[in-house]
Amino acid sequence: MDTAFLRPPLARNLVYDEFAVLRPTSYPFHTLRYLRWNPIYSRPLLTTSPASPSRGLTQRVAALPDVDDFFWEKDPTPILDTIDAPIHLKNLSSKELKQLADEVRSEIAFIMSRKYQPCGPGRSVVELTIAIHYVFNAPMDKILWDAGQHAYAHKILTGRRSLFHTIKQKNGLSGFTSCFESEYDPFGAGHGCNSLSAGLGMAAVARDLNGRKNRIVTVISNWTTMAGQVYEAMGHAGFLDSNMVVILNDSCHTLLPKADGRPKMSVNAFSSALSKIQSSKGFRRFREAAKGLAKWFGKGMHEFAAKVDEYARGMIGPHGATLFEELGLYYIGPIDGRNIDDLICVLKEVASLDSTGPVLVHVITGTESDTGGNIRSEITANEEGPSNSSNDDLKFLETGLSRTYNDCFIEALTAEAENDKRIVVVHGGMGMDRSLRLFQSRFRDRFFDLGIAEQHAVTFSAGLACGGLKPFCIIPSTFLQRAYDQLKMWTCKRYQFDLLSQMLVWWDLRGPTNSGPFDITFMSCLPNMIVMSPSNEDELIDMVATAAMIEDKPICFRYPRGAIVGTSGTLTYGNPLEIGKGEILVEGKEIAFLGYGEVVQRCLIARSLLSNFGIQATVANARFCKPLDIDLIRTLCQQHSFLITVEEGTVGGFGSHVSQFISLDGLLDGRIKWRPIVLPDRYIEHASLAEQLDLAGLTAHHIAATALTLLGRHRDALLLMK
Amino acid sequence: MDTAFLRPPLARNLVYDEFAVLRPTSYPFHTLRYLRWNPIYSRPLLTTSPASPSRGLTQRVAALPDVDDFFWEKDPTPILDTIDAPIHLKNLSSKELKQLADEVRSEIAFIMSRKYQPCGPGRSVVELTIAIHYVFNAPMDKILWDAGQHAYAHKILTGRRSLFHTIKQKNGLSGFTSCFESEYDPFGAGHGCNSLSAGLGMAAVARDLNGRKNRIVTVISNWTTMAGQVYEAMGHAGFLDSNMVVILNDSCHTLLPKADGRPKMSVNAFSSALSKIQSSKGFRRFREAAKGLAKWFGKGMHEFAAKVDEYARGMIGPHGATLFEELGLYYIGPIDGRNIDDLICVLKEVASLDSTGPVLVHVITGTESDTGGNIRSEITANEEGPSNSSNDDLKFLETGLSRTYNDCFIEALTAEAENDKRIVVVHGGMGMDRSLRLFQSRFRDRFFDLGIAEQHAVTFSAGLACGGLKPFCIIPSTFLQRAYDQLKMWTCKRYQFDLLSQMLVWWDLRGPTNSGPFDITFMSCLPNMIVMSPSNEDELIDMVATAAMIEDKPICFRYPRGAIVGTSGTLTYGNPLEIGKGEILVEGKEIAFLGYGEVVQRCLIARSLLSNFGIQATVANARFCKPLDIDLIRTLCQQHSFLITVEEGTVGGFGSHVSQFISLDGLLDGRIKWRPIVLPDRYIEHASLAEQLDLAGLTAHHIAATALTLLGRHRDALLLMK
Repeated sequence: MDTAFLRPPLARNLVYDEFAVLRPTSYPFHTLRYLRWNPIYSRPLLTTSPASPSRGLTQRVAALPDVDDFFWEKDPTPILDTIDAPIHLKNLSSKELKQLADEVRSEIAFIMSRKYQPCGPGRSVVELTIAIHYVFNAPMDKILWDAGQHAYAHKILTGRRSLFHTIKQKNGLSGFTSCFESEYDPFGAGHGCNSLSAGLGMAAVARDLNGRKNRIVTVISNWTTMAGQVYEAMGHAGFLDSNMVVILNDSCHTLLPKADGRPKMSVNAFSSALSKIQSSKGFRRFREAAKGLAKWFGKGMHEFAAKVDEYARGMIGPHGATLFEELGLYYIGPIDGRNIDDLICVLKEVASLDSTGPVLVHVITGTESDTGGNIRSEITANEEGPSNSSNDDLKFLETGLSRTYNDCFIEALTAEAENDKRIVVVHGGMGMDRSLRLFQSRFRDRFFDLGIAEQHAVTFSAGLACGGLKPFCIIPSTFLQRAYDQLKMWTCKRYQFDLLSQMLVWWDLRGPTNSGPFDITFMSCLPNMIVMSPSNEDELIDMVATAAMIEDKPICFRYPRGAIVGTSGTLTYGNPLEIGKGEILVEGKEIAFLGYGEVVQRCLIARSLLSNFGIQATVANARFCKPLDIDLIRTLCQQHSFLITVEEGTVGGFGSHVSQFISLDGLLDGRIKWRPIVLPDRYIEHASLAEQLDLAGLTAHHIAATALTLLGRHRDALLLMK
Repeated sequence: MDTAFLRPPLARNLVYDEFAVLRPTSYPFHTLRYLRWNPIYSRPLLTTSPASPSRGLTQRVAALPDVDDFFWEKDPTPILDTIDAPIHLKNLSSKELKQLADEVRSEIAFIMSRKYQPCGPGRSVVELTIAIHYVFNAPMDKILWDAGQHAYAHKILTGRRSLFHTIKQKNGLSGFTSCFESEYDPFGAGHGCNSLSAGLGMAAVARDLNGRKNRIVTVISNWTTMAGQVYEAMGHAGFLDSNMVVILNDSCHTLLPKADGRPKMSVNAFSSALSKIQSSKGFRRFREAAKGLAKWFGKGMHEFAAKVDEYARGMIGPHGATLFEELGLYYIGPIDGRNIDDLICVLKEVASLDSTGPVLVHVITGTESDTGGNIRSEITANEEGPSNSSNDDLKFLETGLSRTYNDCFIEALTAEAENDKRIVVVHGGMGMDRSLRLFQSRFRDRFFDLGIAEQHAVTFSAGLACGGLKPFCIIPSTFLQRAYDQLKMWTCKRYQFDLLSQMLVWWDLRGPTNSGPFDITFMSCLPNMIVMSPSNEDELIDMVATAAMIEDKPICFRYPRGAIVGTSGTLTYGNPLEIGKGEILVEGKEIAFLGYGEVVQRCLIARSLLSNFGIQATVANARFCKPLDIDLIRTLCQQHSFLITVEEGTVGGFGSHVSQFISLDGLLDGRIKWRPIVLPDRYIEHASLAEQLDLAGLTAHHIAATALTLLGRHRDALLLMK
């Protein structure tokens, strides 16, 4: 498909277009069918704009089957229709680039509105994306994005437009950049703040060592500047002094969390002009020369020159500019992210620089009026953390759900906090989760939202606990991995420290990047930690009461994201559970399911499936992974022939702890046959909840079929799975 | 023991002294015996300095049993002898404080020299420690230290002098601060860079919420400023604007890793005077007033005033000063850390400030000439990471060992690197490990020492791999926990990424803080990861060759720190192993040991112990935890009645993976009896290797006794364990 580069930008035709969708090579072939029926795809081809060369193809396209929604509300995108690869936009005029930006923005807005997803962050970086691709030569030059939504325009401009509507669907485009999807994605983005480290490694160093001369551009968002890793990486970049362009995509002009209520700085003509001056070769050369000269006159002069330079820029630049300079990055900015001419001018200057050293270009992208959204929603729609946006996704996708586990949790916690003044909430990596607002509005001074700073959040909570408070540290499982060392420390020091790991369960729609399948494993190997998980929302409320009661041990619990089971739902206050006590929900014989967490609900369904085959299984709810309910397990082993442990986690978690116990207790020596049902040893790609459960082999049918197979009834098992 | 505070500083007597050692309440009673025989303890009491009031007690002390080494090389410490608690130094004159500093320094040097341990960092902060305790009122005011060695003077001044010689020994004082040891340690220090987060939580916030008015002082070292967590914490501190004193203990005047070869700034009278001016109430009040005034005139003026202020200090302060200001901390400094008068003056001003906001006091402590050591050794002697110092410890403690696993590893890697230009080393959190110098000197441009920045190190390595290199990322197990999320990311993206986790095994002498028992568990649950561990140094060399050969998967291996088994030791080039293949070392019958890692050696000893009882056990070396050697396990299960898995890790690791497999394979259904030997579910306190092995139940005797018990020969098992 490299022929794409050889085509002149305005000479597309449908045949080419049909092949173009094949470019993402890792993509399953069957998605070609989207070409046929999907209105989002076929619509652009029908553009009747006078500038469009594809006009003559209307008839042919009209012959495609599904044309019932022929006239849609979508705006024509004549220029975008000509762009299959970044090289196609190199010949466009300034005016055309601006129109292209509008077209890309409307394209994203249109597709996202069809998916009921917010698109603020994706839309605000359109000009920046176009400018980057205009100036740099991807895929030779490597362009790295750290937030998934910020790469939407990048995906559309790099040959993935036709598949863009499949984003975050099963077998669809990834929500993040992915090097399996396109050669234009040199690195898969992850939990934010990785792109700088990766860019520095992959790019600057690998290139410097190998003697290649391509350029590296990493785009970081201002929200990731809260994460410590960015500082580690910037310090190292400054030290290595490799050539590298870091673009700070500042969506709300807040460099640091401290800038709370400060009014936004106006990005005016003066500052944009000054940005140009600063980035010009002349200025930089002068600065280098001055530095070199000053070295001859001794250190004092050198420092003075550097300081004056810094001051000059500091006076005009925003608060925070010198921060980057101190870390060793040459700061340029701020630049108006909507002014494509300025962007191109500055980036061209930066790209032409051959002197060594990392450069940070500060670009102010979306603001309230610019993108039509408001800042708060943009913040929360950030890819980092299960923010509001993702909750919105869930709300949209699982319509009819008015209440989530998160809501239950926060309601119960707020109720506990009314009675216990020591309860405070520390919240990391999640942005403004809607449920949390209840607690925040009630106890403003007992709520700490630390943003993407999980390491600090965990240690900070430990500090609060030492100060006599009862911190509830709410971090999604997937982000808790960042603070594992800090967690270990506090189990090791035996602090009073209630840690509540809000579990972003693996069936999250975001695919492998944000899944959290490991927490049972990595939390329950820590000594002194109490690890629990509720089977329904009432139990969650009881567990909140349990955690609020415990004074002397760290405690963590995981609960699923999204829908609740639907118990009475009237509880607010829970009854503390006895630590390390599970319960038998339904008594049966021969076979016993011991579930941990919400999967217990599916064990109950599996039981009713089995009863159709005349099998009465026992279902037990473990509640605690650590400490284990030894009595419960002994009872189950004595009264049954088969014990099936079920969990939504990897090997090494609940099942392993059970097997360890029954082995040492001698129960495994012929007394009982044990089978673990865990997540498979691979990442589940993004898909709907039901699809992911099916892929993981964790549906009620799978559980029941396992039991049937264990009983030797293989034919029934096959029947069940049909 | 609070009566200590009521006593006037110079009215000590021996009776009081004997009780004083009981103050660390968690301390085992039997340590009292140290009082009697230990010369280090008893010596100070015999001081004949004219200023000492304890002079009259000489006779009584002389009656104690062990007085053979009565006249020692140790200098008299007349003032230190009068200090049992910080309150005792409040009445000392400036001259006496200086003498006290010298005495504390000589005390630390003396004890450490007896233990063959470096003491540079501990000695350089003596003046700072005294000044802090002179100005602040511990334990009411909370003083937090982030590095263990920096708290040595603090330990000596807070009633733990008599036990100081037991530091890092079994049942001795912790190498870190510990809230179980003394009320003067409000928080247990861990892996550096925690104290700021903890201080902010415990201190500032818990205090502000509870309305208490005590002051919080956290002392951070300049080396921890490499870690991202510090930036997360500082950003939050600036945001919260809580009253808090952060003291940057700058041991070599390097704020950031970038400051490589820059000459040190002279700390002269002018700057120390200026520090005083800056910290004075007047200056701060003026600044606040100016800010307030400027707000009336609008934002421009306000920013201008702030910038001028910043500039004024920036011009005089070192490079990096404004960095802290940008993060929201009011910067004061740099102050000469050897000038106790200046320190006290500045800290007094800082302590008397009631205006809100965190203050950073930059103190330049040890330099080459000051402490008698050199900077490099100080750096490496830093508590962070298994640095040179710790290797030195090991070298001293395990005398006769000329070669360690680390040496073998680096030699093999250097040999591989000669042949494969793509091999580079990324090294995090370890300082200058002596073994690494071989690689560094040979391939200077292929070696990246990133300091305490593990998150960045892992992602940076992934970037290098994307750039076509073969990074070997060497991070001790205990520090790898900090980068768990980054690790997960790269298994999830299926990058070519050789990750080599150098294992700091749990028998490390540093006790629970730096132990690494969890890595088998948390690494082997990651999909796509190859997890292996060698049983001896030859196999380690083979594994290096294996890792160098693999192109498409991340691979990690753990090896123990310290002594090697002692094979021929002539190998440098290894033969790549077949992935996922173990081997049977000795064939036997009935019982089979399947060991993972160096513990295989102890399985072999256990086998010879068992042969005395007429039992011929099989010993197999698993080599790989993931992928498992399925054929080997099946063979073992078919030919034996008992399978004992042995590992130096927690539940959820190798044993769990084996049990998972044999359960699903049906082998566990009465075919084989499986017993796992893992680490106990608690932290092993610091002690010698043999003692720790014994505490963990992982000696060859324990392994053999387990087998005997399993065979029903309980009496023999008891005999063996006698």
